[in-house]
Amino acid sequence: MAGDVYERVMDLARRRGFVWPTSEAYGAVAGFIDYGPLGAMMKRRIEDTWRGFFVVREGFYEIECPTIGQEAIYVASGHVKGFTDKMFQCSHCGEYLRADHVVEGGGHCEHAAALDEESLARELSTLPCPACNETIGDVRVFGFSLMFQTSIGPGSQRTGYLRPETAQGIFTDFSRLLRFYRDKLPFGATQIGKSYRNEISPRQGMIRLREFTQAEAEIFVHPAKKEHPNFARYADYRMPLLGYPAQLAGTPAVEMTMATAVETGTVANEYVAYYLALTHEFLTRVGVAPERLRFRQHLPDERAHYAEDCWDAECLSDRFGWVETVGIADRTDYDLRAHAGHSGEPFTVFIQYAEPVRRRETRVIPRMGALGPRFRGAAKQVADGIAATDPGIASSGDGFSIEVDGASIEITPDLFDVREIEVEIQGEEVMPHVIEPSYGIDRILYSVLEHSFDEEEVEGENRTVLRLSPAIAPIQVAVFPLMSRDGMDRFAQEVVGELKRDGLMAEYDDSGAIGRRYRRQDEIGTPFAVTVDYDSLEDGTVTLRDRDSMRQVRLPRSGLARTCSALCAGRLRFDDLE
Amino acid sequence: MAGDVYERVMDLARRRGFVWPTSEAYGAVAGFIDYGPLGAMMKRRIEDTWRGFFVVREGFYEIECPTIGQEAIYVASGHVKGFTDKMFQCSHCGEYLRADHVVEGGGHCEHAAALDEESLARELSTLPCPACNETIGDVRVFGFSLMFQTSIGPGSQRTGYLRPETAQGIFTDFSRLLRFYRDKLPFGATQIGKSYRNEISPRQGMIRLREFTQAEAEIFVHPAKKEHPNFARYADYRMPLLGYPAQLAGTPAVEMTMATAVETGTVANEYVAYYLALTHEFLTRVGVAPERLRFRQHLPDERAHYAEDCWDAECLSDRFGWVETVGIADRTDYDLRAHAGHSGEPFTVFIQYAEPVRRRETRVIPRMGALGPRFRGAAKQVADGIAATDPGIASSGDGFSIEVDGASIEITPDLFDVREIEVEIQGEEVMPHVIEPSYGIDRILYSVLEHSFDEEEVEGENRTVLRLSPAIAPIQVAVFPLMSRDGMDRFAQEVVGELKRDGLMAEYDDSGAIGRRYRRQDEIGTPFAVTVDYDSLEDGTVTLRDRDSMRQVRLPRSGLARTCSALCAGRLRFDDLE
Repeated sequence: MAGDVYERVMDLARRRGFVWPTSEAYGAVAGFIDYGPLGAMMKRRIEDTWRGFFVVREGFYEIECPTIGQEAIYVASGHVKGFTDKMFQCSHCGEYLRADHVVEGGGHCEHAAALDEESLARELSTLPCPACNETIGDVRVFGFSLMFQTSIGPGSQRTGYLRPETAQGIFTDFSRLLRFYRDKLPFGATQIGKSYRNEISPRQGMIRLREFTQAEAEIFVHPAKKEHPNFARYADYRMPLLGYPAQLAGTPAVEMTMATAVETGTVANEYVAYYLALTHEFLTRVGVAPERLRFRQHLPDERAHYAEDCWDAECLSDRFGWVETVGIADRTDYDLRAHAGHSGEPFTVFIQYAEPVRRRETRVIPRMGALGPRFRGAAKQVADGIAATDPGIASSGDGFSIEVDGASIEITPDLFDVREIEVEIQGEEVMPHVIEPSYGIDRILYSVLEHSFDEEEVEGENRTVLRLSPAIAPIQVAVFPLMSRDGMDRFAQEVVGELKRDGLMAEYDDSGAIGRRYRRQDEIGTPFAVTVDYDSLEDGTVTLRDRDSMRQVRLPRSGLARTCSALCAGRLRFDDLE
Repeated sequence: MAGDVYERVMDLARRRGFVWPTSEAYGAVAGFIDYGPLGAMMKRRIEDTWRGFFVVREGFYEIECPTIGQEAIYVASGHVKGFTDKMFQCSHCGEYLRADHVVEGGGHCEHAAALDEESLARELSTLPCPACNETIGDVRVFGFSLMFQTSIGPGSQRTGYLRPETAQGIFTDFSRLLRFYRDKLPFGATQIGKSYRNEISPRQGMIRLREFTQAEAEIFVHPAKKEHPNFARYADYRMPLLGYPAQLAGTPAVEMTMATAVETGTVANEYVAYYLALTHEFLTRVGVAPERLRFRQHLPDERAHYAEDCWDAECLSDRFGWVETVGIADRTDYDLRAHAGHSGEPFTVFIQYAEPVRRRETRVIPRMGALGPRFRGAAKQVADGIAATDPGIASSGDGFSIEVDGASIEITPDLFDVREIEVEIQGEEVMPHVIEPSYGIDRILYSVLEHSFDEEEVEGENRTVLRLSPAIAPIQVAVFPLMSRDGMDRFAQEVVGELKRDGLMAEYDDSGAIGRRYRRQDEIGTPFAVTVDYDSLEDGTVTLRDRDSMRQVRLPRSGLARTCSALCAGRLRFDDLE
């Protein structure tokens, strides 16, 4: 058992086909990985579980936008200007490195990301280079854009960027989505897909990828109505919260219900609290260990200036410490306002009042009877110009001038009245606030692998087990003929077919001793194994073995698929079969 | 009913949330689309159906590789050099255009892609520019790379490309996959994901995208064993095949079974025939109309030089004619040989013979007794050097020299013998051939929309229906309370919950008259609708309505979810309920 847990997990992941270095034959490129057959299957199951929560249960339809976006989107979102890391090049070895990480690694400073370029250069000068170990000395620290850039089409060289997050696709589709949801708040949309971040020097395997999968929900709510309509679902949900005051005071996380969290102001509002609890439920459902999961609020200097509240779900890793895997933020109207400003489209929702509001307003009223003879065909345009004039200017008594088709026209006081009238206001245009739960699927998958990795000694032999939940295990049922002869092989193949028809991922294995086959399946987390032996041929029963308890029960073949489905869906416990 | 079918389908697609122009607020970019809530759901169902065929049934595990690949991959695959389209710029309007498309559009030539740059320029000179209508005149035609390029990491500016196909990720993972499948042929792997093609001037909506989704399978087979192990499944499957001789002769497609197709040499081998039939089954399952689907063999000048056989599944579109949606090819060992040559890795499989083969071979045998005293610690290295020497050189009688650790060592004839010995050969290294079915998901989705689009007059009103199969319809069951009061609304909401728990996508709608709600659901292809009325409150029954026949049956609420599941899975027909 050489190496730390990370090394042992990644060794298993490579060996058994969960995660591979990408295009290895040409020398793998840091920050990119391949999901092998088992990893891709597990990843898809995690994503489908997420869809079960967000799309099916919450009703936030998924959309799918391109990964290449035009420049205007990322100018508006602020990424072109601000999505950078501070970098320097070591003058000794030529390596490019992230300035804040090296300073934090040097132990001089905890939140080096907040330092400016000169302060970082000062801190770096006396530190050793992590690549060559020489003292860094005088270096220039400068921003490096983390967006991958490309060109769309020939000739014009229109700039495109690989999206740094899936969220912007949802924001730019806001008007279409609003119509889809029939112009009512709240509504939400989700997206699962690749995002990109051209990291300077990624060295943390699956934790810091240049190409990664995000699952994001953008929930559009009325800014004055942050009570979640189904808050009751999680009001009594209890979990530990590490608010920022506790972090500043150095006190531990406090376990509390979501109702208390909102009442005490620990969490800004019901929406944020609802998605904190949902995230806790989701993460533990897919296999994050509750005791290695915490929810940490952003510190005031860490939080984006526009965010009303922001929390990270962090998973504890043996090697990497607390790793941010999910962010849950109330982003207010920052994103929609930015896109409205840059695109000129409104990005608002018309909210009808329950009762129209009556209000007295001073208006400038054109006298059509006088305008018609004087301006003839242009009378309508002149009237519009008069009506649009500030009542304050119009009521001076001297008249005023307006512009029509580029020409200035004098409006004498006989052409209008200034009057107070009663108007009925039906509603108002509101720019919604955005609640954003944003999940890093690769980090979640890695955390689940690490948290479910187990080694134990059984009858003098080392047994490695991935204790994956049946809902996300790549293979759900393994089927073994005791021997590949006398019809046991055909019987077992038929069982595989029956399980597959019931939607279960079943795998046939007839290679090596039964014990070896169990261990092979234990190592990839297969929760159940069926063995077909001579008795099976006679009485039609098979042995079903539970991975975690290693206990076995004898069951008739008929109904086996239904039993396995119920076990995998959690509707039945293995104990109930004994 | 203005516009052609394409316009009417796309209008519906935009209006109801299937497909949207991307980032519209900033001016959509040609060649990119957004899938809205219903389109993304339908797309995912098509992909999942594909997985049902290829991953679950065929057993070809899915992998997931990055969309950004390093340059070496695409140098080896030939894309850096050869993945180009021939382009020219109109000297009048400045537009960049694809030379072969303009020549074909001019009607001078059918397969302009095969022409060289000078011939294209000659053909173009007398044609009108499709953008500005001026006679094109003298232009330069030149290659434009269709790969999107980017840079990975800072400083070194390592070139990366957005993959032009998902296949290369499977090829470069060949050695890992071979180990995963325990070193045995045949095996296969699949990938579903984004691919990119920087089209010069895409003007065909969803048919010609710069970013699109592929589903590809790469099946690695023994070059001398192209009999498919499960060929029996499709031997009697009958479908029309348009072979290249028929195309050259101008005769129509011939309907035949796959067994006949292979026997007559119409299709090269059982593997290609098997995936032709599987593709026909898959496409018609997801909703391509069989009478608007054909399989066309590549013409000799159209087929890649290395391919043994190549067919396209083409779907007929009202506007675009026959559109290639799937390609099925026997690519021989072209891809693996290219990667082996460029990477230096073997990309072969060791195939053990059923019986070892004995062969007499001449070998150079070191005399260890003489080497030991003379070379001491280096004796082993010297012996290896002797054994590796060409027996022809060694048998000259004069001795020879070898190199050990950079030093030249004289080997006198007393240090070795040249003898003929009998060797036993256990097997051989074989480079597999690749059978590749490659699916364009976006084109399939568009074809299904167009083929299922229907308009009819019902009781004097125009009714638009998408006749989508329940397996891929975005919403499977709509649930309507007759009125939103007296408990019918709550009853209907509960039914929605029950349907969702059974894995069905159900939607509640209480807005407007029932007839209007039916029409809204017809238009998005929802196959079933449940109505809750006053009787439901009394006797617990509901009305279930079939989209296509518009017939209705009364059913008890209990068991409704099971009935709907069976209807959607095709295990039950609506007629059986009546």
